[in-house]
Amino acid sequence: MSKITIGLFGFGVVGEGLCNVLAKVQMKEAVVKKICIRDGRKPRSLPRELFTDRPGDILDDPSINLVVELIDDAEAAYHVVRRALENGVPVVSGNKKMLAYHLEELIALQEARGVALLYDASACGSIPVIRNLEEYYDNDLLISVKGILNGSSNFILSKIFNENMEYGEALRMAQELGFAESDPTFDVEGYDSLFKLVIITVHAFGTYVHPDDLLTFGISKLGADDIRYAREKGVRVKLVAQVVKLGPDKFTMFVLPQLITRDKYIYSVEDEFNGVVIKGECYGKQFMFGKGAGGYPTGSSVLSDITARLHDYRYEYKKRHGATRFSYTDDCSFRLYLRYAREEDLALFPFESITERYWSDNYKYVIGHVRLADLVKIKEEIARRDVFIAAAPLN
Amino acid sequence: MSKITIGLFGFGVVGEGLCNVLAKVQMKEAVVKKICIRDGRKPRSLPRELFTDRPGDILDDPSINLVVELIDDAEAAYHVVRRALENGVPVVSGNKKMLAYHLEELIALQEARGVALLYDASACGSIPVIRNLEEYYDNDLLISVKGILNGSSNFILSKIFNENMEYGEALRMAQELGFAESDPTFDVEGYDSLFKLVIITVHAFGTYVHPDDLLTFGISKLGADDIRYAREKGVRVKLVAQVVKLGPDKFTMFVLPQLITRDKYIYSVEDEFNGVVIKGECYGKQFMFGKGAGGYPTGSSVLSDITARLHDYRYEYKKRHGATRFSYTDDCSFRLYLRYAREEDLALFPFESITERYWSDNYKYVIGHVRLADLVKIKEEIARRDVFIAAAPLN
Repeated sequence: MSKITIGLFGFGVVGEGLCNVLAKVQMKEAVVKKICIRDGRKPRSLPRELFTDRPGDILDDPSINLVVELIDDAEAAYHVVRRALENGVPVVSGNKKMLAYHLEELIALQEARGVALLYDASACGSIPVIRNLEEYYDNDLLISVKGILNGSSNFILSKIFNENMEYGEALRMAQELGFAESDPTFDVEGYDSLFKLVIITVHAFGTYVHPDDLLTFGISKLGADDIRYAREKGVRVKLVAQVVKLGPDKFTMFVLPQLITRDKYIYSVEDEFNGVVIKGECYGKQFMFGKGAGGYPTGSSVLSDITARLHDYRYEYKKRHGATRFSYTDDCSFRLYLRYAREEDLALFPFESITERYWSDNYKYVIGHVRLADLVKIKEEIARRDVFIAAAPLN
Repeated sequence: MSKITIGLFGFGVVGEGLCNVLAKVQMKEAVVKKICIRDGRKPRSLPRELFTDRPGDILDDPSINLVVELIDDAEAAYHVVRRALENGVPVVSGNKKMLAYHLEELIALQEARGVALLYDASACGSIPVIRNLEEYYDNDLLISVKGILNGSSNFILSKIFNENMEYGEALRMAQELGFAESDPTFDVEGYDSLFKLVIITVHAFGTYVHPDDLLTFGISKLGADDIRYAREKGVRVKLVAQVVKLGPDKFTMFVLPQLITRDKYIYSVEDEFNGVVIKGECYGKQFMFGKGAGGYPTGSSVLSDITARLHDYRYEYKKRHGATRFSYTDDCSFRLYLRYAREEDLALFPFESITERYWSDNYKYVIGHVRLADLVKIKEEIARRDVFIAAAPLN
């Protein structure tokens, strides 16, 4: 492609960020022809005639040769992306939830129609983690990808640990600064990280795992006692997404708060930043660090996908065609910290062994080994109880 | 290319590392057919018949469709690479000195013959800095690339600062561990970093600058007083290579020891690791960190270039074809720390202004502003004097 004519869906933080970045870099090869928004009457920072509320104005316009999808609603995003790909029009998307639920089908559709879907902006904003897994770490024996993939929850944890804020106060501040949505559930309960992990895993191990099958636990129940405990032990609580190879053709993955020791790279990832550690047998550990959210950083990442289209770039999904077929397993154990109040909450947890136990009137915890599969089974129940759980690192 | 038949030049740390990595990942699409070495009689870890000491056995073999050049001697490397490219055979090279001196000509040759030369392994071992500048940070308004690009000198500095070793002792340890060559001049005097910086700058700003025109000063004259000074001020001395945009179409670049404050990412880059900070207007700061040297990490990086050839990847040198023609300037000032013994050494330095001055019988320093152009003019003279210089960050 020598000239890209963009049809843009969505004009929120990232959509507007992309338009600002495009204006700033004065790119002549890519222009936004039309922007489809839900509410056509809302005042906008760009000329009125650019906007429409009819998807067909983009999807049926043969002069548009790239659809950029940056809308909030995962279901609506899915229909836009599918229709564009079916029409043979390449797509750049930033919607991690949509991708996490539909990637398997969308990869098949890309292959069937020979059309590209790029989404580096969907995971870790400005950090090019997908592109690097796809292009650079594609041949080595990958051991793990671990990281802080959600800026909002990390911002909250930083304020709690470094400035002694309470959880609610830190959350309000994150919302005021635009790092957290007005409904922060996805961020603080770990779903945003989980969706990104599902996408990353497709490029790390070549295998799609449905997000509903995976363990996720967030930071909304982190309490003053947990924070004091972490401080006393000289560790920080971070919300970590990880996929780790186990044996020759298995991997496991989950999103959990972790007690992170000072010697880990992600210990120092603060505020709204993201950090990813890629570990391979030959190169050891690679650490990538940068802004994971915000209009400009994410807009800039979307622009990287757009300019990649100028060179007809597409993901090859190399790991999916590799010699080894990796599959997900939850048949593994790890050390879990559990803070609880009532004995029946403790009883819910099928510990294989308990190695530490403390109780007082107001604060009770155990640390012990537990099978991931056993936790996955009771994950909805865990979410309803007044408990906080956190993992010790697998390796 | 569906199958890569490699002719390998060199079987040192990286060449042997590559063969080990290839064996480890069991790649079927790439095989080493012949290895050209200088000394055919030296015992090797691979079968005798793989080796030759006649370059023609590779360069004249039509079945070899990729030349991988991993030899020490820059002049010999240049002739091998040029001959292969002239024959239309793509090349992967790890020789930073050869590239730093001949890149301009080799880019022209690539374009004239339509053949690819890849060299991501030449800068920062396992950190994919060139590929990311070329592919991902290709559209944004880049502000700077700064980093610790040499593992050997950083290892020495870490031992000095963290373990109170003396310079000579730390250097011997680096040599024993294989991080420094028996002639460590390139590493400790900053030339290795400079060569990498010249290569990086071609991909960051699209402009080739001859290494002989640039200021380089290393760490071999770092003394006990300098170390004590840095400790008292709570900073660390790091050998930093940087290229920084100045104004709309200029940049400056140099390699100097720097007094690095604790709030900088590279403050925490220790031992043989490399760390690179890429700064852009839209995405802010990106930090990449990993092993910069050693057979496996660098071999793994060479393999990334080899597998990129399976997908017919080549550098597009996008910044060279960008709208802005950037040029190098040394018409800029910065704050310099100068430790000296004799007044005539101080007098050599054309300070524009001196902001701090200290002297005692055994230790004398000044800090002041100095023009880069004035330092470049006297760089050979500086190298002969008993002085140590270090930069404060430009921004």
